[in-house]
Amino acid sequence: MVTNGTTDSERCVSSRRVYEGRILNLRVDEVALANGRAAKREVVEHAAAVGVLALADGGRVLLVRQYRYAVGEETLEICAGLVEEGEDPREAAVREMQEELGVRPERLREIGRFFASPGFCTELLILFLAEGLTPSRLPQDEDEDVSVAEIPLEDIPIRMAEGAFRDSKTYAALAWLMAREGLRPQS
Amino acid sequence: MVTNGTTDSERCVSSRRVYEGRILNLRVDEVALANGRAAKREVVEHAAAVGVLALADGGRVLLVRQYRYAVGEETLEICAGLVEEGEDPREAAVREMQEELGVRPERLREIGRFFASPGFCTELLILFLAEGLTPSRLPQDEDEDVSVAEIPLEDIPIRMAEGAFRDSKTYAALAWLMAREGLRPQS
Repeated sequence: MVTNGTTDSERCVSSRRVYEGRILNLRVDEVALANGRAAKREVVEHAAAVGVLALADGGRVLLVRQYRYAVGEETLEICAGLVEEGEDPREAAVREMQEELGVRPERLREIGRFFASPGFCTELLILFLAEGLTPSRLPQDEDEDVSVAEIPLEDIPIRMAEGAFRDSKTYAALAWLMAREGLRPQS
Repeated sequence: MVTNGTTDSERCVSSRRVYEGRILNLRVDEVALANGRAAKREVVEHAAAVGVLALADGGRVLLVRQYRYAVGEETLEICAGLVEEGEDPREAAVREMQEELGVRPERLREIGRFFASPGFCTELLILFLAEGLTPSRLPQDEDEDVSVAEIPLEDIPIRMAEGAFRDSKTYAALAWLMAREGLRPQS
C-alpha cells in the first residue's frame, strides 16, 4: 500500500519515516507539484480492510456494536477487519464474519472498493455483500469486544436519517442496499 | 476531535504524542479494556471535513478530479475539504464549492455525518446535498490542482459498478443519491 511517489503529478523529493507501529505507519514526504511548487504530504500507511454487508434471510442486516476508542463512541457498523499479510480479501471477509457475527456466507460478492480517506491515508476498504448465512464461529480477537445487532431492512432509512450509522463504510454499504431494495432516504 | 479516554469501555492509562503536523497529529495511548486487559491504541487526530454532493439542474452531478498523493492515484470525488478552526461546516461546504467547482448553492442540506475510519482516526465527515447551483468562484488552495467533471445521474450505477468512485465519501454520497432517485446498483 505504499505509494512510490514517481508519478508526473507529484514527485517525491524526500521522505521521512516518523513512526512504525502496530496498525499504521506515518511518513512525511516533501513533494514537487506539477506546477513546480513544493509541498509537504503527511501519509498514514495502513493495511487494506474488508467490510461485509451481511444480509440474513427474512431481510435482516447483521451489524456489530463496539466501542471505538479513537472517536470515543460506541458505533454500529458492518462487520469489518484488516486483511492480514498474504491473506485473500474474501478469506478475510469470511474470517471476520465468523469472529464477529458467528456466521459464514454461502454467497459472497464484492460490491465496491474505495479508500477510507485518500487525502492522507493508504487504507483501501473492500466491500462485500454476504448472503445465505449459516452458523459458524471463530474466537474474537483478544482486544476486541463486539456484540451483534440485527436491523430489519425496512428500518434502515429512518435509522440512517437519525444518524445511527456513524462510519463511512457502514453508511456507504447501507445506502447501496437501500438503492438495491428500492428504499428511499428519509433525510 | 481529541477523545478524553475516560469512558468505562476503554480507559486511557498513558498517552504519548508522536507527531504534530499540518493536517494530522499522531498519538499512541496505552488503555485498560473493560475486561482488565491492557491494549495499545494508535490514534490519528484529524480535523473534521465536509463533502458536498453537488447536483446541477438537468440531473448532472459535479465531481472533482484530482491527484491524491497518499494513494498514488487520480480520483473522481465529490467536492470536499477540511473545516477550518472555528468555521461552520455549512460555510466550509459553500467555500469548498466555490474553490473547487466554481458554484454556490441555493439549497444546502446535511444528509449524513460519519467517521472516515473510526478504528484509528478522529476524522468526521459531514455530508451535504447541494442544489440550485449558480456560478461563483474563489481561488483554489495553492497546493491543490483539481478539475471539474460532470456525470449524468443515470450513468452513476454503471460507473459505480466499473469502480470509478474510489473513495468512501463519494461512494456513500452516490449510493445515497441512487436510493433517492430510484436507480438500482449494477454491481
